[in-house]
Amino acid sequence: MSETKTFRPKARLPRGFRDRGPREIAAERAVVDTIRRTYESWGFEPLETPAFEYTEALGKFLPDLDRPNEGVFSLQDEDGQWMSLRYDLTAPLARYVAENFQNLPKPFRRYQTGSVWRNEKPGPGRFREFTQFDADTVGTNSPAADAELLMMLADTLDALGLKGNYAVKVNSRKFLNGILGLADVEPKKAGAVLRALDKFDRLGREGVEALLGKGRKDESGDFTQGAGLAADQIGKIMRVFTDDVDDLSTVAGFEELQAIQKIVRDAGYGKDRIAIDLSIVRGLEYYTGPVFEAQLTFPVTNEAGETVVFGSVAGGGRYDDLVARFTGQQVPATGISIGVSRLISALRDRAMAKEPLVVVLAVDKDNVSDSFAMARELRAGGVRAETYVGTKKFGDQLKYADRRGAAIAVIEGGDERAKGEVQLKDLALGSELAKNIESRAEWVKDRPAQKSVRRNELVAEVRKMLDRS
Amino acid sequence: MSETKTFRPKARLPRGFRDRGPREIAAERAVVDTIRRTYESWGFEPLETPAFEYTEALGKFLPDLDRPNEGVFSLQDEDGQWMSLRYDLTAPLARYVAENFQNLPKPFRRYQTGSVWRNEKPGPGRFREFTQFDADTVGTNSPAADAELLMMLADTLDALGLKGNYAVKVNSRKFLNGILGLADVEPKKAGAVLRALDKFDRLGREGVEALLGKGRKDESGDFTQGAGLAADQIGKIMRVFTDDVDDLSTVAGFEELQAIQKIVRDAGYGKDRIAIDLSIVRGLEYYTGPVFEAQLTFPVTNEAGETVVFGSVAGGGRYDDLVARFTGQQVPATGISIGVSRLISALRDRAMAKEPLVVVLAVDKDNVSDSFAMARELRAGGVRAETYVGTKKFGDQLKYADRRGAAIAVIEGGDERAKGEVQLKDLALGSELAKNIESRAEWVKDRPAQKSVRRNELVAEVRKMLDRS
Repeated sequence: MSETKTFRPKARLPRGFRDRGPREIAAERAVVDTIRRTYESWGFEPLETPAFEYTEALGKFLPDLDRPNEGVFSLQDEDGQWMSLRYDLTAPLARYVAENFQNLPKPFRRYQTGSVWRNEKPGPGRFREFTQFDADTVGTNSPAADAELLMMLADTLDALGLKGNYAVKVNSRKFLNGILGLADVEPKKAGAVLRALDKFDRLGREGVEALLGKGRKDESGDFTQGAGLAADQIGKIMRVFTDDVDDLSTVAGFEELQAIQKIVRDAGYGKDRIAIDLSIVRGLEYYTGPVFEAQLTFPVTNEAGETVVFGSVAGGGRYDDLVARFTGQQVPATGISIGVSRLISALRDRAMAKEPLVVVLAVDKDNVSDSFAMARELRAGGVRAETYVGTKKFGDQLKYADRRGAAIAVIEGGDERAKGEVQLKDLALGSELAKNIESRAEWVKDRPAQKSVRRNELVAEVRKMLDRS
Repeated sequence: MSETKTFRPKARLPRGFRDRGPREIAAERAVVDTIRRTYESWGFEPLETPAFEYTEALGKFLPDLDRPNEGVFSLQDEDGQWMSLRYDLTAPLARYVAENFQNLPKPFRRYQTGSVWRNEKPGPGRFREFTQFDADTVGTNSPAADAELLMMLADTLDALGLKGNYAVKVNSRKFLNGILGLADVEPKKAGAVLRALDKFDRLGREGVEALLGKGRKDESGDFTQGAGLAADQIGKIMRVFTDDVDDLSTVAGFEELQAIQKIVRDAGYGKDRIAIDLSIVRGLEYYTGPVFEAQLTFPVTNEAGETVVFGSVAGGGRYDDLVARFTGQQVPATGISIGVSRLISALRDRAMAKEPLVVVLAVDKDNVSDSFAMARELRAGGVRAETYVGTKKFGDQLKYADRRGAAIAVIEGGDERAKGEVQLKDLALGSELAKNIESRAEWVKDRPAQKSVRRNELVAEVRKMLDRS
């Protein structure tokens, strides 16, 4: 054994991070481009902020010195000030608006997309870097701004091909608080009550009533402590889930909810697309008025192979102290955030069309220029084409083309060149044939897996072969 | 004064970082999309790696514990291991290839674009987060792989509208080392010699000769120490800058340079697009064979208002120990990296076409639904349109539309609605008029800044107005 053993790091990623290949990248690009096109058509403008903000500007997660990485990834700059990678796109917006308030058109409407980072325990499907797509309207408390976001979100989900497969839901935290007031709920119980209401979807009326009262035992026998309300309090709260809520019109927040509903109905968005849902709660600390959520309603297969309803892919609401932390000035704001990575995993079974690829082999290694010329002609004809640039022999080149998922391999050896011909090998058909050679024999007679074509008809013949497959 | 003064963080970014608005974002998107389309048409596949790598996997910049942030942004994960934000896209590629070698097609050809982070002193135009766009071919030492990258880079610069305004240059580090050997240059002087050759562009033959010898005083009087070569050594080295280099054909590296040149010339790429340039050196430590650089040859105006030649926007070359650090196995690789942020600043004066925007005002605040309906019709007709969602009065709404850079404001008050009409205000013309009211009086007569149109002809009339401007 050598005494001076070289240190070789292991080639691996930090936990909770991942590489992504062509399929996933294409899927995300398609989704992000569709959202962007929709938002731009509504007149929202893009903003990009850097990955880092000063930690003190982030607000919620101010690290203490012993645990500067709690929740966020933080480090010190050269002056000793803590900076952190953004954990969402709202905190950078707040800093941006506070910094540039005088120069912005009001209302200020922007969208932003990009990676956010969370220093949290990773799990299956839970990564520490993922993509969000946010739109926010800053500087107005008009319900028109909330209604606009809901309609734009519905349009976006339509544009993503999800027509009929989603529900955009709206509720009001102000209204929920009004209901809690009506029922004389003590402030310390409010959190437990809201968490209970949030489960209406999953547990139904009976389950929620149990959680508002003493508590609830689930199927596995686990007991969840309830909010401890009295029966008459529970009765007053559960009225929000009757269809006729008009007798609640004196409750705070009712009016803004009705105003939003009127705008979206007038604009022709039906209950099937945008609906009031009094069980929507969202984060407890954050929102001050309307809250939004978009849910996918079609069943999907999860990683364990089980069929589930996919649930929430976007959320948001009104938060009126966006900028006050910096300036002391109240600036109302409302926004929605789409979880792009989550949305893509819901769409993953949908077909992602991919441009077919042609690989031009380099049979005669001293004449690679001919291969480059053929690939160039194919590209000029609108066909995605590459030249084999390695140094391996013919069989390995064919294997390469197959591994690349190419539809066609173009082969020009010395014999072919002398005759002014090239061979086109139909690789898609080739692998079909290998699988199922007998039953396809008849069909294959008229559609050979390999054919000779005139060199000067290369592009036309390749196009013909691609059009057939 | 209150004794419990609330802490208000200042709204500002960490030094060396910046926000970007609609113009810059659109410019970067256009450039990145063009590069991507070209690379995909050549059959390169995308790869995305996360922002973080283990610091030990990055190689060059292993932080010591006292200065873990030297050059890169580093922090410790929950197990105490150092991880760093990527400072380029090559180190993550090396880790990825070492980790997945068995499953990759060989040669493996991928592109990647994204932010990289450098913990360096920021300066004017020098940021600590910027965008790169890389393409690399791993697993072959064929000159065809190098030639392919050069041709693809030339095609990309054409596609970016830079035809005739760039030069892709190629040299060989192996060849340069061969020349140093011919001239008996001592190893410790090699760095100074290469740095001198790299300045041929700027200083010309005489300046380089001075730097190879005793040294050189520049116009400001500053003296740069030379490499200290003898006159006959300098003569032997300067032979590479004669036009006739055929008598150097026995020097190592000459052959690979000739092979690359043959492929690109056979493919029809002339000297004006891709040329051998023996003054190209690139990073001293890194490259082992051919080196590449793309330079913009047109004059641009820098931030100080001076006219300069823009210089390098892309660079790369062959580096043959990409994976060896991890596996001990030599895997040859060659790549190019485009400095996207730099390229955009070169292109900034070029026109960025932007979709014109229409703002529908909400004159009658109780009837915002009509405004939403008009914006919806305009979008359906392919026009970018937004509704004013604030609560300010008419004059402020007009100012908002102007500040948004809208081409047209749509106005429907109570009177107009009763008559089935809307007003279209031509804001582009409006600001023209304000500037230059007299000389345009004649023209304006036939082209009023504001006109009434039938409500049911809104989209057609808006299109007509946009087409005229």
